[in-house]
Amino acid sequence: MSIPTTIPTIAAIDNSALAAQLDQRINNKTKPLGSLGMLETLAKQIGLIQQTTDISLKQAVILVFAADHGIVAEGISAYPQDVTWQMVANFLAKGAAINVFAQQNHCDLQIIDAGVNHNFGSRDGLIDRKLAHGTRNFAQLPAMTPETCHRALASGMALVAELQGNVIGFGEMGIGNTTAAAALMHKLTGIPVAQCVGAGTGLSSDGVLHKQRVIEAAVALHSTAIEPLDILATFGGLEIAMMVGAMLQAAERRMVLLIDGFIVTSALLVAARISPAILDYCVFSHCSNEHGHREMLQHLHARPLLQLSLRLGEGTGCALALPLLHASVNFLNQMATFESAQVSEKS
Amino acid sequence: MSIPTTIPTIAAIDNSALAAQLDQRINNKTKPLGSLGMLETLAKQIGLIQQTTDISLKQAVILVFAADHGIVAEGISAYPQDVTWQMVANFLAKGAAINVFAQQNHCDLQIIDAGVNHNFGSRDGLIDRKLAHGTRNFAQLPAMTPETCHRALASGMALVAELQGNVIGFGEMGIGNTTAAAALMHKLTGIPVAQCVGAGTGLSSDGVLHKQRVIEAAVALHSTAIEPLDILATFGGLEIAMMVGAMLQAAERRMVLLIDGFIVTSALLVAARISPAILDYCVFSHCSNEHGHREMLQHLHARPLLQLSLRLGEGTGCALALPLLHASVNFLNQMATFESAQVSEKS
Repeated sequence: MSIPTTIPTIAAIDNSALAAQLDQRINNKTKPLGSLGMLETLAKQIGLIQQTTDISLKQAVILVFAADHGIVAEGISAYPQDVTWQMVANFLAKGAAINVFAQQNHCDLQIIDAGVNHNFGSRDGLIDRKLAHGTRNFAQLPAMTPETCHRALASGMALVAELQGNVIGFGEMGIGNTTAAAALMHKLTGIPVAQCVGAGTGLSSDGVLHKQRVIEAAVALHSTAIEPLDILATFGGLEIAMMVGAMLQAAERRMVLLIDGFIVTSALLVAARISPAILDYCVFSHCSNEHGHREMLQHLHARPLLQLSLRLGEGTGCALALPLLHASVNFLNQMATFESAQVSEKS
Repeated sequence: MSIPTTIPTIAAIDNSALAAQLDQRINNKTKPLGSLGMLETLAKQIGLIQQTTDISLKQAVILVFAADHGIVAEGISAYPQDVTWQMVANFLAKGAAINVFAQQNHCDLQIIDAGVNHNFGSRDGLIDRKLAHGTRNFAQLPAMTPETCHRALASGMALVAELQGNVIGFGEMGIGNTTAAAALMHKLTGIPVAQCVGAGTGLSSDGVLHKQRVIEAAVALHSTAIEPLDILATFGGLEIAMMVGAMLQAAERRMVLLIDGFIVTSALLVAARISPAILDYCVFSHCSNEHGHREMLQHLHARPLLQLSLRLGEGTGCALALPLLHASVNFLNQMATFESAQVSEKS
């Protein structure tokens, strides 16, 4: 599949003059050199993304994309498919973990129906971008047609084009989507399927083995899928494809991208194959306990801010990492310098 | 040295009925079993500390204890001793990292002069508990007399007795105190001095080796210090001894204790030798980049919430971890259950 001409253009970040200014500003703060560790790295990255030493975070938002997956017909999930729409209803009723954490950390939340297998009717707060009642079963057919995949990318881009803030987190809900993400991971990294599959919402070891066999058979069936968008259309989900579009658009707009768990990172693998410069804009919120996520992050040379053994998705890691982003911005803007505080420097 | 009769009595937490109730409450939330990882462990621990399933965090406060160390005469720090009082002044002017992070996360801050080598006069916001203008040089003499050590413990206890909240974090400032903490670590854990010493505020590798030799010589000189309070008086700092008292009192009051970096954890090593049950009340906020902290935490079988490569002290890790404590309390109190949200359970 060719890449649509509308794909955003992402500028690689390469500004050594600004980098030096940021280093100087960080190093003049009243603390031993480098002693704020990852918060210093983060402040510098945000400065480079925003192209200023006067950094700020505005109107953080987490977009939670939900969709269903035809591959559930192969028995690869511990939960029934209905849980996808039931959890979307739970998001709208503010009863899920992501609601609690987003509210606590003053983060807006958008819930997007990318392709849930349920007729919600008109629901307050639900953003209806439904492209189908779920994907097709990729054990038999490509999950999406090229047209559907393009429409999903375009929908994701359009959603981000309307945002006002400069920080965006990504979350997802979709029973079966760890299977899609594991297939994407295998195809895009070359890591063996056995190292890409995990327990998802709670499979037994037999269940994980079955999931592996399902993916291996599908990979053999669709051996002609080589290009990143072909791989996405063949194995991905509608929520994953919409996230790919949203990520590309967000990086073009020079937003800070908060990348959460296994499924979100699988979307980034696709986006980074299309535009490698996107990685300059990504902050990795959390290393999931889902088997495979650690290797996925290593593949991207990514060091996550949090390692709390979560494996919930929904963008929960983004919401929980947000105070650390604020801390990195706040120390740079608010801390005294050695000079202003009249503190002696290293002897 | 004998333990003063006023040492607080800490109840070991052992309530299997409540533990089962907490597990049930956690597991009924709309999420896969165990998928909130360390936040679930934390919610359960807070419930056991507070002896209720209806957990809450009230008026979190971080106590930052500052003092000077006679051992600086041996040239073991990268910064001059004056930085201790200068940084105290910086805390009072709200210019340090701990000020920024405490304010961001709505945490009160108390700055305590436990024994800084400076006459502050009357300073708004400084809690004067100065016991001396720093400790003696433990390369020659025990750092404190038994009487001074007892007074420091009593001062720490008295400070905590006045607090209104149920969460307390510990921070410190004191040029030279990684040397004191490394000596305490060696004496209380048996781990070789070479594995206990680190770069502190930024020593060269030669500087670290010199620090190691200074500690090894002092350990040989004071070979009769065996009991925990003798070890504390011999090698400790006034800020460390005051923290030991504060920790013991806080656990007696069933507060949640937020344990920060290398120096704070060295105080906990002393407290835990006096009252091992204190560990039931401790939450470990951050694994410091100071060499030795990781092994210290392993010795205590502690898993820290954050690993951000900080090595700043001041209680910065406590302030940064506070939103995660709130997240654990909030998910337990605010998330819907499978029943209330009508979400299907695992098939």
